[in-house]
Amino acid sequence: MVVSKDHPRYRSLVIRELLAELNKAGLVSTTGLIAHGRGEAFDYLLGETTNPNALEAESVAVAYMLEAKNPLISVNGNVAALCPREIVSLSEIIPAKIEVNLFHRTDERMERVCAHMEAMGAKRVLGRNPDAKLNGIASDRSLCTREGILMADVVLVPLEDGDRAEALLHAGKIVLAIDLNPLSRTSKAATVTIVDEVTRAIPNMIDSVDELKTDLSKRRSLISTFDNKANLKKSVQMICKRLQKD
Amino acid sequence: MVVSKDHPRYRSLVIRELLAELNKAGLVSTTGLIAHGRGEAFDYLLGETTNPNALEAESVAVAYMLEAKNPLISVNGNVAALCPREIVSLSEIIPAKIEVNLFHRTDERMERVCAHMEAMGAKRVLGRNPDAKLNGIASDRSLCTREGILMADVVLVPLEDGDRAEALLHAGKIVLAIDLNPLSRTSKAATVTIVDEVTRAIPNMIDSVDELKTDLSKRRSLISTFDNKANLKKSVQMICKRLQKD
Repeated sequence: MVVSKDHPRYRSLVIRELLAELNKAGLVSTTGLIAHGRGEAFDYLLGETTNPNALEAESVAVAYMLEAKNPLISVNGNVAALCPREIVSLSEIIPAKIEVNLFHRTDERMERVCAHMEAMGAKRVLGRNPDAKLNGIASDRSLCTREGILMADVVLVPLEDGDRAEALLHAGKIVLAIDLNPLSRTSKAATVTIVDEVTRAIPNMIDSVDELKTDLSKRRSLISTFDNKANLKKSVQMICKRLQKD
Repeated sequence: MVVSKDHPRYRSLVIRELLAELNKAGLVSTTGLIAHGRGEAFDYLLGETTNPNALEAESVAVAYMLEAKNPLISVNGNVAALCPREIVSLSEIIPAKIEVNLFHRTDERMERVCAHMEAMGAKRVLGRNPDAKLNGIASDRSLCTREGILMADVVLVPLEDGDRAEALLHAGKIVLAIDLNPLSRTSKAATVTIVDEVTRAIPNMIDSVDELKTDLSKRRSLISTFDNKANLKKSVQMICKRLQKD
């Protein structure tokens, strides 16, 4: 379908068509499409823009990744579809490993998502051959690699469900979530929650890496002063303000 | 996938799986899945329950349908997937015609959605052979039948996009919308907006038909006293209250 550039929701319609295409290609799951719609609704309520509190959380997340011994980015179908190149860039400049983890896991889909990330520039993608398990979650999402998720001390989980976010925390990891719903279980459980759309969040994170790489005191102070609960509250207030504006 | 009944979002997960299945069967479009996700997010914010203001709008909508000369229910892929039997029941007791109208229209999908409605009990489904056009919208959504949408004076549009809702209004029709986003263009444009989930809204409407069929003064007073803008405002306030509860 050709979307007119005049349509009030042009950008979001184009992304929808991309996801629909990658669903047909077997990369994005059908329930992943529904999850994207949920995100769209919250982003709409947030004004489809990065709010100052999200920008703060993005810097804090980068600070955690730079402080980590084994930082890792967990990638699912929607993330691979929406911003594969940005994920690769972030993984290179931190540097952080990439592991693919799918809610609806089949060998075929695993291969597709891993191959897609490689086609988009990833030199090494973990996840095809799991040799470990993450405790506390049912389904094949628990499958992971020793070298990747099992060993990681800081895990960035863009677009994650509550069960897995909680399991990662119970395994003792610092969890950095990107989630447009400030009330979700993932948002509430995570160490740092970025309430922002993933295609805006990752580039913002990339932008803050250079400064935080050299300025150790800044990154430590970002971590020590950050209050995730207070930050989430600001996102909620922003949504309410926007809702009542009309 | 088997969904555990203990899961906090059991009902919504089951509906997701149903839509994913009907997407594979060619009934629900891929962008329809994303639209469903948007609705899910708003329903979550509304507490996944019918609020008193939604119940009021449901009665008013039924009153309008009973007062109409040519009431019609417009059905798309998501509506046919989510509550086909309820749509058939409502169409029988009002009585109202049913016409299928698809955003992503192909002859094949038209046939599937019409046949699905017939398999679910609809005796007559319009839309397969359009012989008229609704002015003011691009794409094949404008195709309709003279006997159905063109002639209708009151149209119930569950899950409609803003362009079509506005085109129906410009054609001089009373538009009754079911839309979980109280800020959407459809919600703002409609004569009556029901901010409720469609599988709850249609049964509620059915429940109010008997009384309103006999009580003419009640149905006229419902219509004359209803203020759509004020009703929408109440839904917005309800969302904000819920957001700030946590």
